[in-house]
Amino acid sequence: MDKGQLLYEGKAKRLFETDQSDVLIVEYKNDLTAFNGEKKAQEQGKGALNNQISSILFERLNREGISNHWLEQLNQTEQLVQHNEIIPIEVVVRNIAAGSLAKRIGLKEGRELAFPIVEYYYKDDDLGDPLINEDHIKLLNLVNQSDLNQMKEMALKVNDALIELFEACEIKLVDFKLEFGYDRSGQIILSDEVSPDTCRLWDIHTNEKLDKDVFRQGLGSVEHAYKIILNRLKGALSHG
Amino acid sequence: MDKGQLLYEGKAKRLFETDQSDVLIVEYKNDLTAFNGEKKAQEQGKGALNNQISSILFERLNREGISNHWLEQLNQTEQLVQHNEIIPIEVVVRNIAAGSLAKRIGLKEGRELAFPIVEYYYKDDDLGDPLINEDHIKLLNLVNQSDLNQMKEMALKVNDALIELFEACEIKLVDFKLEFGYDRSGQIILSDEVSPDTCRLWDIHTNEKLDKDVFRQGLGSVEHAYKIILNRLKGALSHG
Repeated sequence: MDKGQLLYEGKAKRLFETDQSDVLIVEYKNDLTAFNGEKKAQEQGKGALNNQISSILFERLNREGISNHWLEQLNQTEQLVQHNEIIPIEVVVRNIAAGSLAKRIGLKEGRELAFPIVEYYYKDDDLGDPLINEDHIKLLNLVNQSDLNQMKEMALKVNDALIELFEACEIKLVDFKLEFGYDRSGQIILSDEVSPDTCRLWDIHTNEKLDKDVFRQGLGSVEHAYKIILNRLKGALSHG
Repeated sequence: MDKGQLLYEGKAKRLFETDQSDVLIVEYKNDLTAFNGEKKAQEQGKGALNNQISSILFERLNREGISNHWLEQLNQTEQLVQHNEIIPIEVVVRNIAAGSLAKRIGLKEGRELAFPIVEYYYKDDDLGDPLINEDHIKLLNLVNQSDLNQMKEMALKVNDALIELFEACEIKLVDFKLEFGYDRSGQIILSDEVSPDTCRLWDIHTNEKLDKDVFRQGLGSVEHAYKIILNRLKGALSHG
């Protein structure tokens, strides 16, 4: 598999062509950004950790029957994925109040929600990825209603699968952000990444934050936190 | 009908008891506030204009079969309304991009929308009346799904009725905010006010703003703008 041209560089990943038109290489970077790019840093080892963690999670989701773009982990920082056309909606699922939800509707951080709630954000950096509703999505023609319903259903399945996996790691899945895309046959598949950059993950006993909030809130070493996640996932899988 | 105790004072209105438990007096104030109370002013005559305009609009909506709390105009600044328990959701209907919608999803102000869109905001000053979705409404127990559906349906009916009335006044109904409440029998009725404080209204030919944006954006005399609305409504009704 030859690494071809750089197709796209995002805040946390680079996307490269390969010699197969349907297959791309994702390289996970050490860059960390928060608050719509206003806070930036690099953390040695972060890319490798997220590449490994997201490979474990995507593989697990595959086994649960949730179609996603991940094909295989190539090396420390790279994975092979299936080409897909990203739908510009960030789907957020929340089990516990934190971050923008806690601020928006005035809930105390840490409050368990009565049911998992789903939010849609318009993936647009210039607009600051605003919260949108289904009328906005229809107006902007981002995706049709039936595909949106499918994305929501898949997001809730991802939630069920990840809650179970993280519980075995003694970790609470607080919330997470997903992106979806269309594969070449027009099917919706889970895309992007699933990692401590895109999930809030708290230790089940201490509520220690083991995700990007460590960076956002300046709570210590990101590498240390993400390593805990990776090690616990490896432990859970070897015993599971 | 005796005016009793002050029950509640809001930013633009005062609510008084009467000697009938089901009937309240609403007094429209001259106060103008914007940006969640950060910009404040008083404009002589504003309360009287809004009292007259909302009386005309509520009466029209009554005749269209849209139940609302308005009973009759008492005098220049006061109207009688039916007691109702306010549901803490602001329902916004939009026909043309302006204000927070234009900013949120990056549309040019003045762009006609392909269909009327409906948004829900959590009526909470401390939180700045944030946009919310149906999951937030369910989580916060603000109203059940079937009542929410009814509110949306009523809001779209109000839109149809007001578009028609304002078109006869050579005015574009850009967007507006509604509030709903439960009457004593548990029925949902339209509440609050419908006026240039809560609607965006533009001259159909010049796009001159004839609503609270005159105050928000410092475009001139609020009284002058609201008088145009009242006079055109009176003209349309006398010819209609």
